[in-house]
This record gives sequence, structure tokens and C-alpha cells, in this order.
Amino acid sequence: MLKRSLIDQFRVPAGKKIKLKDFDTSWAQTPELEELGKDEVKEKAKATLQANLAELSAAQEMLYANDTYSVLIILQAIDAAGKDGTIKHVMSGVNPQGCQVYSFKKPSAEELDHNFLWRCMKVLPERGRIGIFNRSYYEEVLVVKVHPELLDFQQLPPGKRGRAFWKKRYQDINNFERHLVRNGTIILKFFLHLSKDEQKRRFIDRLDDPEKNWKFSMADLDERAFWNDYQRAYEDALRATSTRWAPWYVIPADHKWVTRTLVADILTTTIRSLKLKVPELSVKQREALLEARKSLEAEGT
Amino acid sequence: MLKRSLIDQFRVPAGKKIKLKDFDTSWAQTPELEELGKDEVKEKAKATLQANLAELSAAQEMLYANDTYSVLIILQAIDAAGKDGTIKHVMSGVNPQGCQVYSFKKPSAEELDHNFLWRCMKVLPERGRIGIFNRSYYEEVLVVKVHPELLDFQQLPPGKRGRAFWKKRYQDINNFERHLVRNGTIILKFFLHLSKDEQKRRFIDRLDDPEKNWKFSMADLDERAFWNDYQRAYEDALRATSTRWAPWYVIPADHKWVTRTLVADILTTTIRSLKLKVPELSVKQREALLEARKSLEAEGT
Repeated sequence: MLKRSLIDQFRVPAGKKIKLKDFDTSWAQTPELEELGKDEVKEKAKATLQANLAELSAAQEMLYANDTYSVLIILQAIDAAGKDGTIKHVMSGVNPQGCQVYSFKKPSAEELDHNFLWRCMKVLPERGRIGIFNRSYYEEVLVVKVHPELLDFQQLPPGKRGRAFWKKRYQDINNFERHLVRNGTIILKFFLHLSKDEQKRRFIDRLDDPEKNWKFSMADLDERAFWNDYQRAYEDALRATSTRWAPWYVIPADHKWVTRTLVADILTTTIRSLKLKVPELSVKQREALLEARKSLEAEGT
Repeated sequence: MLKRSLIDQFRVPAGKKIKLKDFDTSWAQTPELEELGKDEVKEKAKATLQANLAELSAAQEMLYANDTYSVLIILQAIDAAGKDGTIKHVMSGVNPQGCQVYSFKKPSAEELDHNFLWRCMKVLPERGRIGIFNRSYYEEVLVVKVHPELLDFQQLPPGKRGRAFWKKRYQDINNFERHLVRNGTIILKFFLHLSKDEQKRRFIDRLDDPEKNWKFSMADLDERAFWNDYQRAYEDALRATSTRWAPWYVIPADHKWVTRTLVADILTTTIRSLKLKVPELSVKQREALLEARKSLEAEGT
């Protein structure tokens, strides 16, 4: 496990203005780590990830046995930052009965006909489970903010769509998340932070490799033209919605092994910090079990 | 239609402490009306109700055509106050395609495994529709407050269940409703205010009339023993959650015709105040319709 202090450096402090360019997209090349050979670091990270995955599986079972907390993981990123791969590699060891993934695409007509939190509210994880939102209601203050013409499809009551409008959306999100936390949901929000160069490299890779062609969409290239607008929308959203009760983590995404190691580590550390134990039985419950045992033994063979 | 000023007298002012005993459960016997013969008032009310129902049906169609607003009606009351009858008589003239009723009973295991707003969130009305909640998330600060042992089933994170706990629930409800209102939901909350004597009379009626026996449950009598606790829980909830954006109305419930007339009137007046019109088409849309007409006419016969 990484040290708590190390984890904290990826956390967006509540209520502070941030600039994404102050956050490293690589991390593997930070001076502290460069002195180690890169391969050595990679090996160490791999071992950390493996250890975390085993522990994550155990942690999820404890969540399930306690039936008090659920974990909601929100993954947001620009295209090709590695959301799908992160889900696959971090969550594959977890019992699917205790884990559910929802990917939010273009909203349906029925979804547009409700409040913007509705489609995500419906599929919140139950107590004892880990729910992963691959994209989420944050799209409502990201892609919709970059392309405000999308608001036209939402049939909202008339009114200005200026700063105050977005501020209300942030406020609604914060209040909603606080309600969830009060009722037993642990919320972890990860922004996978990719550099523009690395996105280019990955797009070219998708175009060159026939096995990866299906991953490329012309729309991805269109969105790349809005790079700066997206960075600004993320900065605004992260600043407004990184709260005490539901913090954002900016995860370096230029190296997949870094992303996965960090997400697994933060997730495991957070569940572990709940200090859950196997539920203890009352004296009465223990006695009932003893009775049940006697009754089974007394059966004719 | 009743005058706006008359309607306002049933509205709980935002942020004010109220005593339910200051609200009349009868209203038919208020001095202003007593001078009229009771039958005459009743006839007049009946005519008002009929006029309102016709208008309500038209108002709902306009909601549907505009596809911008939805209406959420919350009905709360103690047993035998007439929630079911009010829904039946006020809403029967409305096209069922534009109207949905949800009755919330004892929560299921799946519901208990989510945040307390979840089961109501899932079934919020779409734009253009009227949704009626027969009981609602308010039960979470009413029956659950009167019987706090019910909280044990909710598997909440540990913590005190004192004033601060209930305050957070009120706050979550207010924030949730504000989010809905911001996104186009009109919220009307009706507390059907019945006197203890009238409840007794209705219970005895249910016991004496074989056709009404099915309506009586022993549990109703058990809850009657908690009369004062419920009145207090309602006072606290109404005070904490009657807001500018989602007001509570205390509706006299000792006379069914009074209840129905008032609910229909407040509902119709509220939708009417939106001043909805048939959606206007743009020049381009008009031209497209003209083209369509030409194309139909040009078809061989």
C-alpha cells in the first residue's frame, strides 16, 4: 500500500482553485522515482497492484457481510485516458455479485425527460456493493458545458445559462452526494488526467492497429479540438465539487500501470479505513446457532 | 376558482413554526361560511370542483404539449384522512397517459439497501406528466420519527439519532426538491389535516359497514395511540420543509368535499400560473409543415 501522504497529493483540496497543468499526467518520471530504474518501479507497482487486488476482494466481502456501506466510484476522463482498462484491471478480482458497472452514454428520451441526476440515481449501488459509474452525472457539467447547445434537448424551464446556472448544478451534485454519504455510501471520484500528446499517441495507435480500430471514433477527434475547453470545464467542476464528503482524485493517466496502481490503492485504502469486522452476534443469536447445531446432530442418519 | 388569497391561507409559510391546532380541520364551519346554509356551500363547492376538473384535464394536456414541466403531488396524512378518495375524485378526469400514481408501502429489502430517497427518486414523473405520491419520502421523518426503532432496519452508518440526525434528513429533502424544481418539476405537498374525533367516526364506520371492513386494519388503531406524536412529527416536518420552491398546504380533511375542492383548486391554479401555451413553431418548422402538406396533396389518388 502507498502511504496516506502519497495518496493525499492526488486529492483535490475542498474549495481550492486548481489548474490541471499543475498536476503531473505522468508521475512515473517524477524526480523521486527517476533515480530508480523505470523497470524497477514498474515491477514494484505491479506487485503493489497484485497485493491490492487480493485485498480489494477481501474488502468487498467485508462490505457485503456488514451490509451498511456501499462504495460509489466515479470515473471521468477525456477519450483514451483508460477508463475501461482501469475498470477491467482493478475490478476483475472482485466477486461480480458485489460489484456493478454502469456506463452512461448519450441520454435517452426518457432520461432527458427527468432531472439530470435521475438516470444515475436509479442505479446507485446497494449496501454491501461497489458501484462504478463509467462517466456519470458529471457529464452534465462537462460535455454539456463545453457544448451548451446540448441543453436544448433537456427541455428545461426558461432561464439564463450563465455562471449561476452551472453553480446550481454543482450545488445540486454536492447536496446529492452528501445525502448519499449520510446514508452510507462512500464516494470516490477519479479524474484520469491524460496529456494531449499521449492522447494523440493512443489515437494513432488505434488507427494503425487493426485490432484496435473499433475503439476509434471520428467523434473522438472532433472532441479533441475542444481540448482546452474540456480542461477548463474539468478544472471548474473539480474545484466546485471536491468536497470533504466526496473528494476528487486527479490520477496521472499517461502510464496505464500508474493509473491502475493508484486507483486500486486509493480504493482499497478507503474501504480499509472503515475498519469493518465480521458482524458480531448477540448472545441470543449465538444461542440460536447452538440450538440449530444440536437439532442437526439429533437428526437420524 | 378560489381566490389566490384564500389559497394562501392553507399554505405553510417558509421557515415559520406552526401548531397544527391553529389549523382548522373542518373549514366548512368557519364563520364566513356558516352564514350560507351548509348545503348551499356544498353545492357551490361541487360546481367549483367540476369546473376545476375540466380545467385540470386541459391543463394537463398543455403540460404534455410543452414537455418542459412535470408536476409532483405529495399526499401525506394520518389514516382515514382521505388520500385515496382525493386521488380518485381529483384525478379521474385526467388522461392516464399523463398521470401516474405511486403508493409507497413498507419498504422492501432492496429499498432499505439504498439511500432513503431512492425508491421515490426512481419513479419521478417525466416532463409533461403529473405524478402523485400517495405517501412519500416524508414517511422517513414521520412514521420513522415516531417509531425510531424502524431505523434499525435501515442499516445506516453508526451515529446519534438525535435532533441533528432529523435535521439532516429535512435538509436532504429540501435540497432534493430544489434540484427537482430547478429542473422543471412543480412540487405541491398536501397534508390532509383530520381531527381525532373524525378519525374515530370513520374507523367506526369501517367496522360497522361490511362493505368498508376491508379498509380497516388493526394497525390503524395501534397508530391512533400515537396521535400526539404524529401531530408533533408533522408540525416539525411541515415547518422544516415548507419552502419557497416546494410549499406545504394544510388541507382541512373532516369534510371530504372540502378536501377535494381545495386540492383540485390549488393544483389547477398552480398549473395555470405557468401560463403555458401551445408550443409555437419557428418559421423554418412552419415551412416544413407546408412542404409536408404539399407532398401529401401531390400524391396520386
